[in-house]
Formats: sequence, C-alpha cells, structure tokens
Amino acid sequence: MQSDVAVLGLGQMGSALASAFLRAGYRVTVWNRTAAKATPLVAEGATAAATAAEAQRSAPVVVACVLDYPALTEILDMPDGILVNLTSGSPEQAREMATRGVRYLDGGIMTTPPGVGDERSMILYSGDQKAFAETEKLLSALAEPINLGADPGLAALYDTALLGIMWATLTGWLHASALVTADGATAAHFTPLATRWLGPIAGFISTYASQVDAGSYPGSDATIDVHLATLNHLVHASDVRKIDSTLPRLLHDYARRAVEAGHGADGWARIVELLRAKA
Amino acid sequence: MQSDVAVLGLGQMGSALASAFLRAGYRVTVWNRTAAKATPLVAEGATAAATAAEAQRSAPVVVACVLDYPALTEILDMPDGILVNLTSGSPEQAREMATRGVRYLDGGIMTTPPGVGDERSMILYSGDQKAFAETEKLLSALAEPINLGADPGLAALYDTALLGIMWATLTGWLHASALVTADGATAAHFTPLATRWLGPIAGFISTYASQVDAGSYPGSDATIDVHLATLNHLVHASDVRKIDSTLPRLLHDYARRAVEAGHGADGWARIVELLRAKA
Ligand SMILES: NC(=O)c1ccc[n+]([C@@H]2O[C@H](COP(=O)([O-])OP(=O)(O)OC[C@H]3O[C@@H](n4cnc5c(N)ncnc54)[C@H](OP(=O)(O)O)[C@@H]3O)[C@@H](O)[C@H]2O)c1
Ligand SMILES: NC(=O)c1ccc[n+]([C@@H]2O[C@H](COP(=O)([O-])OP(=O)(O)OC[C@H]3O[C@@H](n4cnc5c(N)ncnc54)[C@H](OP(=O)(O)O)[C@@H]3O)[C@@H](O)[C@H]2O)c1
Repeated sequence: MQSDVAVLGLGQMGSALASAFLRAGYRVTVWNRTAAKATPLVAEGATAAATAAEAQRSAPVVVACVLDYPALTEILDMPDGILVNLTSGSPEQAREMATRGVRYLDGGIMTTPPGVGDERSMILYSGDQKAFAETEKLLSALAEPINLGADPGLAALYDTALLGIMWATLTGWLHASALVTADGATAAHFTPLATRWLGPIAGFISTYASQVDAGSYPGSDATIDVHLATLNHLVHASDVRKIDSTLPRLLHDYARRAVEAGHGADGWARIVELLRAKA
Repeated sequence: MQSDVAVLGLGQMGSALASAFLRAGYRVTVWNRTAAKATPLVAEGATAAATAAEAQRSAPVVVACVLDYPALTEILDMPDGILVNLTSGSPEQAREMATRGVRYLDGGIMTTPPGVGDERSMILYSGDQKAFAETEKLLSALAEPINLGADPGLAALYDTALLGIMWATLTGWLHASALVTADGATAAHFTPLATRWLGPIAGFISTYASQVDAGSYPGSDATIDVHLATLNHLVHASDVRKIDSTLPRLLHDYARRAVEAGHGADGWARIVELLRAKA
C-alpha cells in the first residue's frame, strides 16, 4: 500500500477532503473521472491513480465523495479495506451499501468545502464501529468526527434532517430579508440581528427537545394562541408588501390546526404531532 | 409624578417587564384590567393604580404590553409623556399609533418572559428618537435596547421578520426531530447537533446578506443544483417515514423553480428573488 488514504471523486468537496488529508501529513492517492482535476492535488503531494480500481488498491482506507450513489456503484471495486462514503444519499441507500461485503462507514459532511480541515466543523459517521475506531484519527484531519453508532443509515438520516433545518432557516431568513428590504432597510443591517436571534432560538429548541421525547408540550413560555396572533402579522406584512406568503401561511396553518384541535394553550413543540400525522 | 415608569398590562410579559423595572430599583406603577394580577408586583414594591388613566398620569414614561392594538386603543389616555408600546402588532398599526399626538416609541420584545431583565436579550425600538435618548437607560433594565431609527414601523417589521425566522427554524427542527425519532433516535440525542449546526448556518446567512443587497448570488460554496439533489433525499426520507412533507416540498419547489429558470449554478440566496415575486 503506497498511501494512507485514497480519495475517489475530486469535485469541489472531494478536492477539499484530499487537500485536508495532505495538509495533515498523510500520503494520499487521488482519482477523478475527469483526470485533470487531480493536477492541483498532485502539485500538493498527492499520487494520481490511473483508474478507480487502482486507487482502491492503493490504501487501506478509501474515502468516496462523488455526485450520488449510482456514480459510486459504477466505480466501486474494493477487494478489502474500509470504505468511508461521504457521498450524499438517503438512509435507505446507505443501509443497502453496507450489505455489499465491504467494511462500511457512511458519513454526512456538515460543512461546505472551505470548512473542511477546520476542527469546528463536524462530519457525522455511522456504520461499522470497528472501522470507525481504526479510522477516527485519520478522519479527524477533515473535521470533528461525530460517531452515531452502528446503524449505517443514521448518518445520512441526521445529515438530511440537519440540512432540512438549514433550508428552513435560510428560507425563513430570506423571507425576512425580503420583508425588511421592501421598507428600505438592507439585509446587511438586518442580518446581524437575525444571526444573534439564532442564539435564543437555539435555547428554545433545547428546551423543547425533552418535550418532543416526552410527548408533553406545556406553553409556559409562549402559547400557540399567542403565536397564531403574531403569525397573522407576518402573513399580513407579507401580503401588504406583495411578498410570497406561502411559507408564513404554512406555519400559520400548523398553528391554526393545533388551536382548532384544542391545543392553543400548548407551546410550539406540539406541532411535531401534526408533522408525524402525514397530511 | 410618584413613579419613574408605569406598566399597563400585567399578563405573562407585562408582569415580567414590571418586575425587571422593580429589580433595577425604579419606582413602578402598575395597572391591569383584571386587578388581581397586580398583587404579586405590589408585594415586590409596585404601586397599583385604580384605573388605566390614573396609571398613565403617574409617571413620565408609560410602557404598554397588552394583547393587541385594539386593547391598547381602548385604554390609551395620555395627556403627555412618552408611550413605549411593547404590544405586538403590524408595522402599519405602529405607524398609525405614532400619529396620535403622543411621544411614541414602538418596541418588539425578542425574548420570552424568563429572558426579560437579562442583558443578553434584545428589545428592538423605533420611533421618536429624542424619546429613545431620554428612556434608553430606563429601558436597559428590560434587555439590551436596539435602536432602529425614526420610522415607528421598523421595530414591528423587524420583530415580525425575526419571528418568521423563529417559526421556520423551530418547524424545520420539529420536522427533523420527527424524522430521526421515526428511526429510533431521541430528540434529546439529535438536538445538540442541531443547535451546534445553527452556528455554521449563521455563517452562511452572514455571507449571503451582502449577496441579497447586491442582487448577485454566486454558488461558490454550494449550488442550487446540489441543494435540489439533496432536497430529494429529504422529501424521500419524509415520505418513507410517513411524515408530513409539506415543508420539504415547499423548499424543494423553490429550488426546482430556480433551476428551471436557469439559476442552478447560483447559491441558495437566489431564492429571495422568488419570494419577492408574489406567487
Ligand atoms: N459542496 C458541498 O458544500 C457539499 C457539502 C456536503 C456534502 N456534499 C456532497 O459531496 C458530494 C460531491 O459534491 P461536490 O460539491 O464535490 O459536487 P461536484 O463539484 O459537482 O463534484 C461531483 C463529483 O462527482 C463525480 N462524478 C459525477 N458522476 C460520476 C460518475 N458517473 N462516475 C464517477 N464520478 C462521477 C464528478 O466527476 P467529474 O469531475 O468527472 O464530473 C466530481 O468529482 C455530493 O454527494 C454532495 O451532496 C457536498
Ligand atoms: N409571551 C411572550 O413570550 C411574548 C414575547 C414577545 C411579545 N409578546 C407580546 O406581549 C403582549 C402580551 O403578551 P402576554 O404573553 O403577556 O399575553 P397574556 O399573558 O395573554 O396577557 C395579555 C394581557 O393583555 C390584557 N388585555 C387583553 N385584552 C385587553 C383589553 N381589551 N383591555 C385591557 N387589557 C387587555 C390582559 O389583561 P387581563 O389580565 O385582564 O386579561 C393581559 O394583561 C402581546 O402583544 C404579545 O404578542 C409576548
């Protein structure tokens, strides 16, 4: 084995992964379908493999980061070793991949390429626990490794769930920015307040987590009745400014349904019950 | 004037406000429609007024926090002095209230009652700038006062916009919790990762703010094309677990429309243009 780790896929993310391994002092083999993308990494000290199969024989650990699972399936050719798959997919795809006879760790990268190599970033892992123990130090070169246990689907599930929070938050913030910029404010003025406000929101979430697990949602800080009244202002302010109110109306609808079901005195965490009952 | 400040409305929030003023050493007059709610505050040192009108004559600054604007309009009777209105309402309601001949400051409380009196909390103000300068020190007893300038509607607009971010984030997190608990994880295990993940999300938002102001949305960290592919996993994972996928589908729809309009290589901030064009 000439290398410590092989990286398959040198797109924006795969290149960042290979580069972080190199900076941490590891011997790295790289491969990409379009060979030219290996050039900057070879300049940084990587070894380019001529084929995907050759790369997979060059190191005891293979880190894959290609577009999707079908792309990975096309190139997968590992006689032994540990496959760390950082390609995004569904939990179901990850669980299926774990049945292919290779020692399998699935991962979800919770950062963009510039955050790779930063220990404040996190990558979620689940799957073969012995493989995790053997690769944890190596993987620490990429981000803090978070071990979610033996179910190979859990990293992808948490990844998907966390991305869902990201899209919801980003879109809520973009809607908020559309509102305030309609009245002449700038997103640059509004946004520092928005990011500061994520602090208290994180506090509310921490409080509500045990409520979700207990199935009991006391409205001791703010009731859905009060939320519903203020949600009306959000819908109204959007309509007055001719801003798309689909997201506010969806949130309003959850609150209204909870109130109509007799839960107006509960807190917002009660909405989880509506989400669990598929519309 | 026997008091430094009068508080009208002693619900969950008004009581917290009056109590914070008392703890900071101010002389406080209180009034509530249902008189009994004044009792614990009188025990803390407040003076109870017999009528709303009497309360409004007892101090140079009147802080109002009742259910809504119609309730405030019913009790408003101020010959002079400064009205600080912390009742939630729309920007339009705040701007109308500012025309009633009283020195007017509108405010948006960005915390729940337990956060009142904590300097890490914030309350947004806008309106009469001389009134703000005169009351800033007093108002610091409640939370950090954030001055948004002379437009009396801006505090309510920012308040509504920030609450919109809160509902979007809370609901995104509840959906995520529904997903992971469907596979046997607990919200308590998942949530610390979710709150930590809000840190990088705040970073993305900070980067995108100048993009929103500039109207240019480079996909240099992650493209809408890549988001769309991973949004499919979120919708799929929700459907497989029979969890309401209305929110994921809405987010997916924005991404799909941006891609179809030829913006797949842009970043998520591009979605603001879809929000501005009312559906
Ligand atoms: N970018 C991010 O912020 C981010 C964050 C977390 C996770 N991810 C995940 O990381 C993975 C890669 O994303 P990326 O941002 O690096 O995307 P990208 O820049 O578009 O790169 C895609 C990579 O997949 C390769 N590929 C596509 N089809 C292939 C096939 N049929 N056979 C072999 N290789 C194939 C491409 O090779 P060619 O160069 O030959 O086209 C390229 O190396 C995705 O699953 C993505 O969801 C990305
Ligand atoms: N709770 C929060 O976390 C929070 C956060 C930010 C902003 N706010 C805002 O603060 C305001 C008060 O909320 P809260 O949580 O204190 O609600 P609350 O506990 O329900 O209290 C409502 C208050 O309004 C009074 N009221 C209602 N109708 C009235 C009328 N027609 N005339 C006179 N008084 C009337 C009530 O008096 P009675 O006691 O006689 O019913 C009570 O004092 C709302 O605008 C809310 O949106 C609340």
